[in-house]
Amino acid sequence: MSSAAKLDVLGVGNAIVDVLAETDDAFLAANGVTKGAMTLIDTPRAQALYAAMPPGIEASGGSAANTMAGIASLGGKCAYIGKVSSDQLGEVFAHDIRAIGVDFHSRPFTQGEPTARCLILVTPDAQRSMNTYLGASSYLDESDLDPALIASAQITYLEGYLFDRPDAKAAFFAAAKIAHEAGRKVALTLSDAFCVSRHHAEFTQLVGHVDILFANETEAAELTGEKDFDAAVKALAAKCPTVCVTHGPKGSVIAANGQIHRIAAAPVAKVVDTTGAGDLYAAGVLYGITAGLDLPAAGRIGSIAAAEVISHLGPRPQKSLKAMLPRASEL
Amino acid sequence: MSSAAKLDVLGVGNAIVDVLAETDDAFLAANGVTKGAMTLIDTPRAQALYAAMPPGIEASGGSAANTMAGIASLGGKCAYIGKVSSDQLGEVFAHDIRAIGVDFHSRPFTQGEPTARCLILVTPDAQRSMNTYLGASSYLDESDLDPALIASAQITYLEGYLFDRPDAKAAFFAAAKIAHEAGRKVALTLSDAFCVSRHHAEFTQLVGHVDILFANETEAAELTGEKDFDAAVKALAAKCPTVCVTHGPKGSVIAANGQIHRIAAAPVAKVVDTTGAGDLYAAGVLYGITAGLDLPAAGRIGSIAAAEVISHLGPRPQKSLKAMLPRASEL
Repeated sequence: MSSAAKLDVLGVGNAIVDVLAETDDAFLAANGVTKGAMTLIDTPRAQALYAAMPPGIEASGGSAANTMAGIASLGGKCAYIGKVSSDQLGEVFAHDIRAIGVDFHSRPFTQGEPTARCLILVTPDAQRSMNTYLGASSYLDESDLDPALIASAQITYLEGYLFDRPDAKAAFFAAAKIAHEAGRKVALTLSDAFCVSRHHAEFTQLVGHVDILFANETEAAELTGEKDFDAAVKALAAKCPTVCVTHGPKGSVIAANGQIHRIAAAPVAKVVDTTGAGDLYAAGVLYGITAGLDLPAAGRIGSIAAAEVISHLGPRPQKSLKAMLPRASEL
Repeated sequence: MSSAAKLDVLGVGNAIVDVLAETDDAFLAANGVTKGAMTLIDTPRAQALYAAMPPGIEASGGSAANTMAGIASLGGKCAYIGKVSSDQLGEVFAHDIRAIGVDFHSRPFTQGEPTARCLILVTPDAQRSMNTYLGASSYLDESDLDPALIASAQITYLEGYLFDRPDAKAAFFAAAKIAHEAGRKVALTLSDAFCVSRHHAEFTQLVGHVDILFANETEAAELTGEKDFDAAVKALAAKCPTVCVTHGPKGSVIAANGQIHRIAAAPVAKVVDTTGAGDLYAAGVLYGITAGLDLPAAGRIGSIAAAEVISHLGPRPQKSLKAMLPRASEL
């Protein structure tokens, strides 16, 4: 039996600063950018793409970090493990995540690789195409895990993007083991269909160690091989106790204990930038679960959080999500 | 007689990356921030204020640099002289100003001081309170001036903020001399009432070397000692051939050749952040003058450019200003 948790959620992911710029589809085509995906880029490609990009704004990002920012904005207690460098963008990342109340004390990387950045091109249809230079973030390994911190959180939330490197893969299995031995739960987001495709066997293995799984429809299809949405949800539900699959403007489905809950999307006046949509959906669901709400209510908080983040440019909430929630009886 | 100019405008100023965050008035009071002003801060103050600030976004700024970005967005040809460091924020600044088509080749500062940043707190009334850590930007001196570049521009535009350091003061007088010897014009913005107050005698002297002067109402009052708006404009007009004084929501007044032109502000659905309002007004006026338009038409372009920048968070235009202009016959 576990003791009372000090933290609601601990996130582990790639600590990234986003560089956001608005472009058109012609720019994506001319520069060989895969629309809607997350593509890993090396230094020469990062330099060339940045040189071609219009002026941007910089904002702290990183999938699991965005989720922690969302949970903090909802009023939850959380912490984050991720690797920045001891440079200006690393300071920006650390400032922003701490400023919203997320505990962040990962020691910075000091051996040369700069803080990770993601060149995000937002097209007029609000789609984001992400080009990630991993830099310092890719040096996260098992030694960066704080077992006491993991044991202190109701849920440890792992970001699939980190799976692109062997050391981080090992760290994920280690984190799941520590959490479960402490009587805690483990959550995972599949992050990106191409990432799932690159590491299919290992993702399938990791899902067997996960209590709560997040995916969007293309990731669910990629992992299960089922092209039909409901069939993919069913296949995931056979592997994992709680499965949350987003379905774009249609909302999401949460499958658990043999039940399927269909959750509507929350209304948005104008979708500006879908960056962070899945991250904030996960924030709402994880907040709801750790606050002791039932799964449909948790899903509806996910819809509200996702709706806020897609209504503006940038990957994290700009308004207090807590202030946007209806009374518990109305969820 | 001067030869045909290759450039419309050359800007000289503090090369700064802005860190923008929304706060309330209580935050300004609790942290000793002077509302609406530009305050110079040192390293410990910058660290303490940043630690207290909410999460922000980073965007390239700097008064004269914003003006050059505005002129480029209007379709003008311009260049910029300012000092960044060889660090990440320096790369961001250089990328953003070049990406919009401004020629920028100032050699970076490599001796330790980081790129300048300005912590800008935007309150719900859309006022911005600026806290500037000058860093590398303050090392600009006469050796950074390219005489051929100055001689190639119809107008060299100087930013009053730079006046806070002796080397830059000397550089300003040198730049004005080079420009005039090449048969070109010199423009100056007073930038900030507190800055005018700190360097009153030297500003008064410099205005005697300037062809086009920009000020807002408080700066005009500070330099002339006239509290009445029209009296201050008249006093400035006695010192300088063309005087452009902004008057907030009332618009602006341009005084030249014994005539006073009153220019209305352009309508804005919602004022979000007044950062860059004066910079973009100057962009419109300078673009109009160098395009050969009359002063009232130039002033109206200034109003249009200012209206765009105050409708969103951040100091530079987000839309093409050229596309927002009416036909010349309707200006």
